[in-house]
Amino acid sequence: MGNSIHEECGVFGVVSPARNGVADLAYLGLFALQHRGQESCGITINDEGTLRTHKDLGLVEDVFSRGELSRLGEGNMAVGHTRSGTSAGNDHASCQPIVVNHTKGRMAIAHNGNLVNAFELRVELEESGSIFHGSSDAEIISHVITRERMNSESIEQAVARSMDRLRGAYSMIVMTPSKMVAVRDEYGFRPLCYGQTEDGTYIIASESCALDAVGAEMIRDIEPGEIVVFDEDGVRSITDRCDKKPRRFCAFELIYFARPDSVISGCSVHEARLRAGACLALSHPVDADVVIGVPDSGLDAALGYARQSGIPYGVGFIKNRYIARTFISPGQKSRERKVRIKLNVLAKTVRGKRVVLIDDSIIRGTTSKRIVNLLRDAGATEIHFRSAAPPFLYPCYYGTDLGDRERLIAYKYSTEEIRKLIGADSLGYLDPADLAKLPGDSDVGLCCSACFTGDYPTEIAEEKMERETAK
Amino acid sequence: MGNSIHEECGVFGVVSPARNGVADLAYLGLFALQHRGQESCGITINDEGTLRTHKDLGLVEDVFSRGELSRLGEGNMAVGHTRSGTSAGNDHASCQPIVVNHTKGRMAIAHNGNLVNAFELRVELEESGSIFHGSSDAEIISHVITRERMNSESIEQAVARSMDRLRGAYSMIVMTPSKMVAVRDEYGFRPLCYGQTEDGTYIIASESCALDAVGAEMIRDIEPGEIVVFDEDGVRSITDRCDKKPRRFCAFELIYFARPDSVISGCSVHEARLRAGACLALSHPVDADVVIGVPDSGLDAALGYARQSGIPYGVGFIKNRYIARTFISPGQKSRERKVRIKLNVLAKTVRGKRVVLIDDSIIRGTTSKRIVNLLRDAGATEIHFRSAAPPFLYPCYYGTDLGDRERLIAYKYSTEEIRKLIGADSLGYLDPADLAKLPGDSDVGLCCSACFTGDYPTEIAEEKMERETAK
Amino acid sequence: MGNSIHEECGVFGVVSPARNGVADLAYLGLFALQHRGQESCGITINDEGTLRTHKDLGLVEDVFSRGELSRLGEGNMAVGHTRSGTSAGNDHASCQPIVVNHTKGRMAIAHNGNLVNAFELRVELEESGSIFHGSSDAEIISHVITRERMNSESIEQAVARSMDRLRGAYSMIVMTPSKMVAVRDEYGFRPLCYGQTEDGTYIIASESCALDAVGAEMIRDIEPGEIVVFDEDGVRSITDRCDKKPRRFCAFELIYFARPDSVISGCSVHEARLRAGACLALSHPVDADVVIGVPDSGLDAALGYARQSGIPYGVGFIKNRYIARTFISPGQKSRERKVRIKLNVLAKTVRGKRVVLIDDSIIRGTTSKRIVNLLRDAGATEIHFRSAAPPFLYPCYYGTDLGDRERLIAYKYSTEEIRKLIGADSLGYLDPADLAKLPGDSDVGLCCSACFTGDYPTEIAEEKMERETAK
Amino acid sequence: MGNSIHEECGVFGVVSPARNGVADLAYLGLFALQHRGQESCGITINDEGTLRTHKDLGLVEDVFSRGELSRLGEGNMAVGHTRSGTSAGNDHASCQPIVVNHTKGRMAIAHNGNLVNAFELRVELEESGSIFHGSSDAEIISHVITRERMNSESIEQAVARSMDRLRGAYSMIVMTPSKMVAVRDEYGFRPLCYGQTEDGTYIIASESCALDAVGAEMIRDIEPGEIVVFDEDGVRSITDRCDKKPRRFCAFELIYFARPDSVISGCSVHEARLRAGACLALSHPVDADVVIGVPDSGLDAALGYARQSGIPYGVGFIKNRYIARTFISPGQKSRERKVRIKLNVLAKTVRGKRVVLIDDSIIRGTTSKRIVNLLRDAGATEIHFRSAAPPFLYPCYYGTDLGDRERLIAYKYSTEEIRKLIGADSLGYLDPADLAKLPGDSDVGLCCSACFTGDYPTEIAEEKMERETAK
Repeated sequence: MGNSIHEECGVFGVVSPARNGVADLAYLGLFALQHRGQESCGITINDEGTLRTHKDLGLVEDVFSRGELSRLGEGNMAVGHTRSGTSAGNDHASCQPIVVNHTKGRMAIAHNGNLVNAFELRVELEESGSIFHGSSDAEIISHVITRERMNSESIEQAVARSMDRLRGAYSMIVMTPSKMVAVRDEYGFRPLCYGQTEDGTYIIASESCALDAVGAEMIRDIEPGEIVVFDEDGVRSITDRCDKKPRRFCAFELIYFARPDSVISGCSVHEARLRAGACLALSHPVDADVVIGVPDSGLDAALGYARQSGIPYGVGFIKNRYIARTFISPGQKSRERKVRIKLNVLAKTVRGKRVVLIDDSIIRGTTSKRIVNLLRDAGATEIHFRSAAPPFLYPCYYGTDLGDRERLIAYKYSTEEIRKLIGADSLGYLDPADLAKLPGDSDVGLCCSACFTGDYPTEIAEEKMERETAK
Repeated sequence: MGNSIHEECGVFGVVSPARNGVADLAYLGLFALQHRGQESCGITINDEGTLRTHKDLGLVEDVFSRGELSRLGEGNMAVGHTRSGTSAGNDHASCQPIVVNHTKGRMAIAHNGNLVNAFELRVELEESGSIFHGSSDAEIISHVITRERMNSESIEQAVARSMDRLRGAYSMIVMTPSKMVAVRDEYGFRPLCYGQTEDGTYIIASESCALDAVGAEMIRDIEPGEIVVFDEDGVRSITDRCDKKPRRFCAFELIYFARPDSVISGCSVHEARLRAGACLALSHPVDADVVIGVPDSGLDAALGYARQSGIPYGVGFIKNRYIARTFISPGQKSRERKVRIKLNVLAKTVRGKRVVLIDDSIIRGTTSKRIVNLLRDAGATEIHFRSAAPPFLYPCYYGTDLGDRERLIAYKYSTEEIRKLIGADSLGYLDPADLAKLPGDSDVGLCCSACFTGDYPTEIAEEKMERETAK
Repeated sequence: MGNSIHEECGVFGVVSPARNGVADLAYLGLFALQHRGQESCGITINDEGTLRTHKDLGLVEDVFSRGELSRLGEGNMAVGHTRSGTSAGNDHASCQPIVVNHTKGRMAIAHNGNLVNAFELRVELEESGSIFHGSSDAEIISHVITRERMNSESIEQAVARSMDRLRGAYSMIVMTPSKMVAVRDEYGFRPLCYGQTEDGTYIIASESCALDAVGAEMIRDIEPGEIVVFDEDGVRSITDRCDKKPRRFCAFELIYFARPDSVISGCSVHEARLRAGACLALSHPVDADVVIGVPDSGLDAALGYARQSGIPYGVGFIKNRYIARTFISPGQKSRERKVRIKLNVLAKTVRGKRVVLIDDSIIRGTTSKRIVNLLRDAGATEIHFRSAAPPFLYPCYYGTDLGDRERLIAYKYSTEEIRKLIGADSLGYLDPADLAKLPGDSDVGLCCSACFTGDYPTEIAEEKMERETAK
Repeated sequence: MGNSIHEECGVFGVVSPARNGVADLAYLGLFALQHRGQESCGITINDEGTLRTHKDLGLVEDVFSRGELSRLGEGNMAVGHTRSGTSAGNDHASCQPIVVNHTKGRMAIAHNGNLVNAFELRVELEESGSIFHGSSDAEIISHVITRERMNSESIEQAVARSMDRLRGAYSMIVMTPSKMVAVRDEYGFRPLCYGQTEDGTYIIASESCALDAVGAEMIRDIEPGEIVVFDEDGVRSITDRCDKKPRRFCAFELIYFARPDSVISGCSVHEARLRAGACLALSHPVDADVVIGVPDSGLDAALGYARQSGIPYGVGFIKNRYIARTFISPGQKSRERKVRIKLNVLAKTVRGKRVVLIDDSIIRGTTSKRIVNLLRDAGATEIHFRSAAPPFLYPCYYGTDLGDRERLIAYKYSTEEIRKLIGADSLGYLDPADLAKLPGDSDVGLCCSACFTGDYPTEIAEEKMERETAK
């Protein structure tokens, strides 16, 4: 109880003084951010101060029928959200945008990230009169901002003051009847950028792929610590809190979480993954006949490995595109069946071959083992497993849900033990030192690699660390 | 903004230390209270301290599929709610039970009634840190109780202290991890009673018909001002606030709102309506051939009129039982069509006859006019309209939604004008003085008749009266 | 296999050369005929020769969303159907209208009734090349008519010739690209009538209540044996087959099945039921304090009994209007619970009273027993059960589904035994001889009473009788 | 009217004398064949002679909820079907399996392919008593087989005799209460194979990827002209009609339609596509910097082109995996928006580069033009379009729906004109002569290439050709 859940989310904002189809744009944007959260989604329309919201558990496609979309109606702004929560927070009360209906004015909030002081804030707020219905950090943030708002001259001032109280990762959008405010924490753990369409509509999005999806030209990333205000007068930036802390963009966004067609601080995610593959080829070379990737997130690194090593790139698996959340995996051998129906081996690619198999990471090891088995059954003579992420050893407090630490295979076993457990002929992880090479010559800077190294950019309350460990 | 909506609701509670099917009982109970609210419904299960809620817009049948019911699972207590809100409050955030997730303990609230100081409470709460998501009084009450709870020794103490702050109508159920508390305001505007099933499970319900529906024997009404606490140790009553104010049970509950098979303070609703009909026959006699009622709520008074007058009782209309909320009334003459498809005249009953037509009330007069037309078309020679309620002249602040006062036909026109407008040959209303006769020899006492007389039992802030009038 | 199911159905046709909202009219009409069938429904639109159909299992409300209705689009004719089948035929292939897509022209059929030679026809058709997908008589009829059509000059000639082959009950509508044909078997077992709206649209319907529902003026019943053809030139009647056989309208339509506001051959169904009650009062008088009916279909007879006997009419039960097909009756005592939640006793009406209880009929006796128990529990001192139908002793081959003959309580027990089984103080059935009195001075004539007397108007193949008996 | 639609379908059969989860296996199998048809699907279970069917419009995931799957229950056999029809045949009556309910025994049919004499058969059947409800070839075939069955000793004899009457493409499964029969037309246009699971259950499937999906080992393809009978006694092959005609497997199955992980007559579809790419590189070489494919079906050929040419293989597009049928493409620029949201360019891959762009084919050219535009916008300096299929010039009568011939861009324009229309710098198609190289050293033999060359393996009635041309 009272413990915030880890959340991976996508946020999307539209500011269109000309009222040019904001609901449609938000709907399209959420499709492009669906990979950042499949548990729930929502859109709040701002129709000259009247806020209308529709949000529910489910995919964008399920939650927004044509009827729901038209019921939202037109407006001058919109904010959207997709969320992937752990089951604990899987209820309607945690769906976003969170809408606050206060005498000082209404407000809608869409948030991505994880606060490290959520529990402390919540206790403090409850003791002075707040009541919580769900378990999202966004609900806590909505209380912090609303309280600051009562003593502030503007929403941006309230947001700025709130930043002094919020510790951890947050990339978020705050919409009031007259303004939209985009803000990113001082380390910049999670991405956030904005752009503009031909007709002048401003678009704010977690990733640039969502700008592309609505035909918007990217302008730039919101900087770590920056507050950007969009209103009738245009765009204003508040940079007081910029450059106070080192940049620490999440390395796992580059390796797994972001979409490959996104560009973050000038870094193409696809190219970062090609570089991860190249690094793997350099640190863990092997004599082999073909390099294959696990679809979809292992494919880029596989291509990078192939190019660097000179070993031919091959297509090793076909992924069934029709398996969605509602797939009923029947019978006893349910989990095994699900892997088999999702992923089929292209036997001709691997039969009689020495295979380099690239996946984005190894978390619990169970899926890795099943995939190695599939290749072995299809006739691969050697299987050399390469992980595009270093071994996960520490919990993430900034929004990546790695589950119970006890279930992280690398926390419990050595690399050689893991190799045996998953049945590979060799096993190589990305060297944590190589994480610095992924961003190339872009402005990403040094990534946060706390989950691999335990080197947390922010203070983490000891109590919290114990809670996590004890989970 | 910030203005609470009028709500007509049903509440239902189950306390079963033996964990005997509490979700099923709540589900059955809500069906029996569906007439008290068709906009939304919900159930919160208390499974030894863990609260699980499912609530949504829609009828009980739509909201609770077999899957949803089984997902709620088993528990030792449950609280359910049905609500009929005006469109303003027609969103998920106003669905009940309201669940509070607080460090001092969780709580679920289901409420029926309307506070007269909701606006004042809300402003005060917001100024000291509360945030509201919906527009229900229940949300305001949840904040008041939670704040009192922080300085109270028990939930019942917190509820008792909250009663000093809540003004107006409330019959409600508060469930904490270990207790269920039922409470009714000091005037007793809205009904609330409890009973017990054969296996010892306690049932709390807005109306006794819901006790019947689950096979529970009625024990008694919760008294105005009473707090009844149900927990592992059984039932305890706190009566400090009883008998401080005059009883003022809502007269319109007797005439229209409650189900005829309910018994309130010893008064059978069906018999109260028979008496209303008898009073009408005495005050507004007429020489006629047949007495018919508008189904369903005019039928009882029609029978009472027939018995008293000696004019034969007849069946004048057949109501189509398959027309529900989702009925699409197509085309231009949509409203007219809807009346016709809902209500068909039994021509043989009225052709060539002088008809006494009884309806429960006349609010706007438009439906009354259509019904008179239907009879006229079917060949009735005279139509003598009798209304089982007096003319509505004042707004209700205690939970009966009469809509905009300007649209109350009796507020704008004289009885003779109304007679002409609806096309009847004569028109008679229940005399407000006869309201005192409806409860017979039961313990109901004098009813609240403020909507007919303007005689409000509680103080109403002038500002509120203006707001209502200006609506 | 190969055995047709008994079907109770409603049919509805619209002919609007001016294309005046035929889909909307069909939708409204089906709501008014929903009582004739709740298992499935469908509408076929004729758009100048193009037929568009939507049909499915479920109530009209569930099957026809606004989207489905608008997808049907406009046209110049429409035919609709509601069906109540036994579970055996409860699949999509048996939903109507049945649409035939043949080189000789398309055709849609909606049928109410039951053929006695369905099995023989089916075998004969299959042996000469027909294939059946469902188990409805309508599918068999569609084959018979299509074959006749190949050698006929017109659809009406094909229908006329088919009548020589179809034996049993059929009231049906056949729609071709250019005509609508309504036809009723020579005995007239099932009702069928037509009327016209103000704008000249012709409406054909199983019952006149559906004409009322769409604002159509009734013109007349289709006569037994008559074929009525509606096309661009207006209406034509073919009466060659009229008056060849005695009229045998189904008595149970009058007692139970038809809606009380329908008028059949000049007989008001409501008044027929009042007369049934009066007959019961004359044959089975009793000294009692109140007469009550089981809602809804026992209420009219109860009123008739009360009027004839002079014993006051009372309201004994309240029926819950929100219990629909999808109601989940949870737990062990499921059936008992369902009766209790559907029907609640008005204790004040019966406590300490000698009660005459009227129901439309007694089939298996289990529900009757539960209802008597409810009254006993509520304090009735005597319960005198009167059934508005005579005892059911024989299967119906013309479309009334009485279930397995072995489960008909009157087939197995004497009246005195049944009285004891259901727990009543006395028991009286309508005298079969009194059935002749139900139609009053209307043109209904002598009813078919085969299910009470075994006197079948048509020949029934011995084999069929054995099959039924052996069921 | 009367004109069969082109259908692309998947069929799946399960024979499990041990009754080992046949419904679950069919459900899994249909997921693996979903790419062969997304319009409708269905499963018929054979429970010792009782057939239970569920089928509807929609994806497997939508049509089969857990409830529907469990309602199908267990059995000893099952047959499943996925279908992709043109809108004309998009109704419930055309969903498969087609179930026949005949005195000579029940039967379920699932069919893939297109008959060239469907119209003639249909007229002939209708003239001798058949009636059709939908527009599928499967319904026609069900009539042909049923008629033959009346004079045959066994279902396999009836199927064999029917083969003399059916002309064109058919790979199908016929299930009777006691047997399952798999049959493929003499040219073998469409694939069909079978295998066995560890526990002895036989699986029949359109493609081997569906055997993989349920963990079955492939045994072999059903040969062109072969009838394979599965029953309690095991498997029997009837080969009388084999090797009477030349093999003509559909070339477009290899290029586009089949899943790359399927193996057909020993030919890996993935490798066939690699070879198509290699052929393109040899016939249409170009000096370029990167080779990219349009996901998903252009990727294999792109890899083949890259390997052969030595130009690096790159990832040019990211496909949004969440865009399904119900995606609402809002607003005016709807089609353009849909392409953009489905496909995003990886700008880093193409900016400033000379790009070889490979797609599986060019049909109407509109999508090709949009894709070229996307690349151009992203900064590609040259775009060399290569199509892995030759130009489509002729209609397919065997089951590939290419739409109206007038809309085939290659039928109306020269290659140079097309190049200009789509905006590419060069354009090259697979040489039809190279189609013979796609199967490699497998047993596929010479493919049917009628849609490219007009060389139809079967006779096509002149009338049919005109109908198609006139469409």
